[in-house]
Parts: sequence; C-alpha cells; structure tokens
Amino acid sequence: MKKSANNSTCRIVLDAMGGDFAPRNEVLGAIAALSEDSSIEILLVGKKDLIISTLNEHNLSFPEQNIYDAEDVITMSDSPTAALRTKPNSSLVVSANLVRSGKGDALVSAGNTGAVMAASTLLLGRLKGVGRPTIGVPMPSETGTCFLFDAGASVDCKPSHLLEYAIMSKIYVQEIYNVKNPSIGLLSVGEEKSKGNDLTLKAYELLDNVRDEINFKGNVEGKDILGGKTNIVICDGFTGNVILKFAESVVGILKQRIKSFALKSFFNKIKVLFMRGTLKKVLSDFSSEKQGGVPLLGVKAVSIIGHGSGSPTAIKNMILKAKEMHEKQLLHKIEKALSDYANK
Amino acid sequence: MKKSANNSTCRIVLDAMGGDFAPRNEVLGAIAALSEDSSIEILLVGKKDLIISTLNEHNLSFPEQNIYDAEDVITMSDSPTAALRTKPNSSLVVSANLVRSGKGDALVSAGNTGAVMAASTLLLGRLKGVGRPTIGVPMPSETGTCFLFDAGASVDCKPSHLLEYAIMSKIYVQEIYNVKNPSIGLLSVGEEKSKGNDLTLKAYELLDNVRDEINFKGNVEGKDILGGKTNIVICDGFTGNVILKFAESVVGILKQRIKSFALKSFFNKIKVLFMRGTLKKVLSDFSSEKQGGVPLLGVKAVSIIGHGSGSPTAIKNMILKAKEMHEKQLLHKIEKALSDYANK
Repeated sequence: MKKSANNSTCRIVLDAMGGDFAPRNEVLGAIAALSEDSSIEILLVGKKDLIISTLNEHNLSFPEQNIYDAEDVITMSDSPTAALRTKPNSSLVVSANLVRSGKGDALVSAGNTGAVMAASTLLLGRLKGVGRPTIGVPMPSETGTCFLFDAGASVDCKPSHLLEYAIMSKIYVQEIYNVKNPSIGLLSVGEEKSKGNDLTLKAYELLDNVRDEINFKGNVEGKDILGGKTNIVICDGFTGNVILKFAESVVGILKQRIKSFALKSFFNKIKVLFMRGTLKKVLSDFSSEKQGGVPLLGVKAVSIIGHGSGSPTAIKNMILKAKEMHEKQLLHKIEKALSDYANK
Repeated sequence: MKKSANNSTCRIVLDAMGGDFAPRNEVLGAIAALSEDSSIEILLVGKKDLIISTLNEHNLSFPEQNIYDAEDVITMSDSPTAALRTKPNSSLVVSANLVRSGKGDALVSAGNTGAVMAASTLLLGRLKGVGRPTIGVPMPSETGTCFLFDAGASVDCKPSHLLEYAIMSKIYVQEIYNVKNPSIGLLSVGEEKSKGNDLTLKAYELLDNVRDEINFKGNVEGKDILGGKTNIVICDGFTGNVILKFAESVVGILKQRIKSFALKSFFNKIKVLFMRGTLKKVLSDFSSEKQGGVPLLGVKAVSIIGHGSGSPTAIKNMILKAKEMHEKQLLHKIEKALSDYANK
C-alpha cells in the first residue's frame, strides 16, 4: 500500500455496489470526479455487467480494465464482521483487498458502515500507535464547523483512545479543512475538570498532559458542538453516534412542526409558503450532501465511508476527498504525530 | 415524610434562593401557584428579609410563619456535595431538612442542579429498590413528547440502573402525562439487539426479561427521540445530559443562521421579518418554560429541579407539578412497581 504514496497518480478503489442506488450513483459519481480531476485513477468494483450497462445507459465511457468484477454484495442488513468472512467475493472485500495488495491507494464506499469500518480495520490494518480507528463528522456550528470524533467507530473505548482521536482529528482538520492549530474540547457534562464520567475524567488527564501541543481547551458540553466553542469535539463512539443521529433528525421535526402549523389555517399556509425558500437555505448546512463522506482515521490506507443514500455528487466528493487525503500524505502525518506524542 | 402522604393539604417547600433571579421569581411563582390552587401550602425558605421585601415590593401577602429563614445560599459555582457539608444553613439544605423532618411533602428548587440532586439523594434518601435516582426531561417529538431518562443524575451507571429508570419513568409518564402504557426504548447505536456498548447490551437483556410488562420496544437510535418512536427513551446520564444540552442549543444555531442570512441583503431581511412570528410559534415547543422543572425520581419525597433562569411561571408550574405528583401518590406507586419487578 505504502509504496505508491508518492506516485503522481492517486488510485481510488470505489466499491460500486455499496449505496442504496448502486451501481448508478457510484458510476455517475466516479465519472463526475474524473471530469473534475483527470489525474485520478478510479477502480470500479462490483457486478461488472451491471456497471457496464449503467455506463452504456448514460452513454459514458470508462476503461474496462479498471472495472473489477465482484459477484457478491454486502447489504445494509448484513452483520459487518460476519459478512467479511461469508462474502469474500463481495464488492467491499474485493475493494479492500485491492488496496491491501497495493493496487489502490484509497478505499471509498457508501455501503454498510459497520462493514466498511470492519473491512478497513481488519483487511487494511491499523496504523502503528492506533488502538481504535475513528470516524469523524462535521457539524454546522455558530462559528463555522465543529468536527465530532468519534461518531461511532468504537462504542466502548478507553481514555487512551480518546487521546488518539484528538491527535488524529487535529491533523485531519488542519490539513483537509485548513484550520490552523484547531482547538480541541472533550465532550462532558460540565466545563469543570471535575465533571464527567469515569472515561472522560481519565481522558482529561491524558489530554491535559499535552494541552499546549494539541490546543486542548478542556471539557465542553452538548451545547458547545453547535455553539462552536472548539473546532473539534472528542467523545466515545456511542455518545458521538447518538448525537450525530439526533442532529440529523432535527430538520425532520422542524419540517413536521412547520407542516402541522401550515395545516392549522389557510393564513398559516401562506406564511409557510413564504418562508420555505429562506428556511431551506438556512437549513442547507445540516445536509450531509456537501461533505459526501466521512473518513475512518487510523487505518493503513485512506478510507472514506459515505451515506447509503449518497447522490452522485456525494460520491464524487468522497472520491475527491480521498484524493486530497492521499496527496497530502495524511496517514504519514498521523503516524508521525502519534509516535511523537507516544515519546513524550 | 410519609405520614403526610394522605393529608388533604400538600406542603411544598420552595428553595426561595435557588434561581438566577431569586428570590423575586420564586416569590412571584409561589404567589401565582397559590392563586391557581389555594389548597397548596407553600413554605418559602431563604433570606427572610429579602423575601419579605420582595413581597412588599409587589404588594403581596404571604403568611409569615411559612417563611423559614436561611442565611446562606448555594451558588451555581459551588461544588454540589461539598456545599451540602459546608453550607448547612443554605436555603437548599434547610429546605431538604424541612421535608426530611416531615414538615413538607415536596422539595422544589431552581438552584444548582447537582446540589439539588445531592440534597435530595443524601438528605431525603433513596426509595427502597433504587440504586440511582434519575432525572427525566420531556423533548418535543414528531408524535408529541418523548421523555428522556436519565438526563444527567448519574453519569456512570450499571445495567440494573437502566431497568430502574424504565420502571420509574413509566409510572411518571403514565400518571403525570396520562399516557396509557407508555412504550419504552433503550438508546443505542442501532435497532438490532446486537448493537450497543457494553452497558446497553447488558441492559437490553434485563429490559427484555420484562418486555411485555413495561412495553419495551427494544433499541432506539438518536434520531428516534425527536422522531417519537417510543414515549420514553432510557439511557445513561452522561449520554442523556449531552443530548439534552445539544437539543437546547438547536434553537440558538437556527436563530444565528437566520440572522446571518438576513444580514446578507435587504431582501433577505424582509423575508426573515416575515417569517419571524411563524418560526417563533413552531419553535415554542423547544422551550423549557412550559414544563417548569424536571422531577428527580427515586428519592423518598417529591423533588422538582428547575432551570436557574426559570421565570415566575416556570416556578409556578414546578409547584403545581410537585403537588400533582404528591396527590397521585407517585412515590408509593414507584416503590410498589420496583418491588413487583424485583420479585419477578
């Protein structure tokens, strides 16, 4: 995997059967990415006949030697780790093995999140110094964007894992989002050092030891994520996943409340019609479309995981982000940082 | 405490120095509650001269023998358990001791949340069968209201505590919110039984054992709180507190986004002016004003904890809720249910 890190071409392996609209959105997303950046090489992995018929249907051309046949598909209902074993010919496992064998630099999939994490962790392997890989999500905040790590890669974690998340996410946000020396907060139930559960109280100590080096700002609370108190918020994957899914549901209840308000009277309906466009613009930040996908940090290759419902644009953005991560040698920088902190 | 459970008069001990606007809002709230329900007896606890001058200032009368002097105040920055020890003459400790000694049936305070919980747990004591008391909060949901327990009383808890929360919250929601046989979900990272962290996987087993009796619907996710999939969602207090504070911050970021949209152009400003009233109505559900306060379930007397910023209306509603809980013999019913399940 590593020998290509300095190659001029970035080779992205795309699990073409991952998402809910596969291979359509994957194929269209790949073509869109190539038309935006022709320096990328994409390997499409999945049911070859389906991929080719999708290309033909949309009158698109794609080098056939870059289509890798995989007869099986890991579905959203498959058990992640079991599926890796029982479906060795699935598009995801074949994709991960292509990266593992050095034929690709990055893995991109909008498939079963748990399975993509498992394939990345088990087939690609963890970077040296990483106990648990982590997934991060950007959230809209009053000061711009707040990145939440971990958003669900590891539901039971140790204090040392939270320190790893801080180090890895710091490099990611710095390099990919151009935030200079991003500030880091530890998610807890109060600002004071003494507030928290057993996990965060111990993690606080570890983070406090490298406070200046990582720009650690201490504990933050649930309100500080959208409040944007720090650029990054660190938490265990259980809490992060619950927050992420809760946040995604906010737009839903607002829409429902507005709808039921509109139904109360004709006059209300007119009011709601008037505000619809404005509200849509205001709420657009809460959509995951722009981001495309989220990285799994801590494994030995770039790995980007997308929403199953991801549009071609989302897939395109996942590919472009994978390329950027590869180009900026993010994994190398993460590994170096982890080793630096381990030696402190 | 118990001997008065069947008295016709409910005696509510109000910590008059708790909130940010004490004793003003407490005094006005108490008078408002009395004018709404004259059968209640209220004991006001705090700096007597301040309470009396507040009454005079607003031209209100209140029986002086029901004002208990307490010279000290536990502030928001005091450490909860330490404050109970170092400030024995604080309005909160005096209030809790009045309930403990049988002079009152319920404790109501808008003071330092941690201190009110500590005073309730340590001075009033836990009900038989309760390992950890729990705080519950109502959240607006697509199907009405979803109650989240625990919202922060206990940040590290055992699987058995989650079962207790389920039993206690069920009775509370049934009796106080008239929801017949409320459904209960366990907050986790996926619907499947196999999804969760160590705590929830074990709690699932305990809840599953009494599935039919408590109307347990299995795991729910972060999105299902606002989605209203179940009437009650059970979680550890760390996760619950983070979710609660995150939810409270949603309105803030919406307002900020709308404001910055308005600032972009004159035309945008007009659009926002038009939608302001509508949006205010739609978002009113997210305000905690109506609820007033939240109960701490599992202690030996009714205990209601309010927001420090609570208005007189919030204080009034806290008093009325305390009265209802007392009148409906909620604690007795909770104790009975816990004992019934313990014997299963």
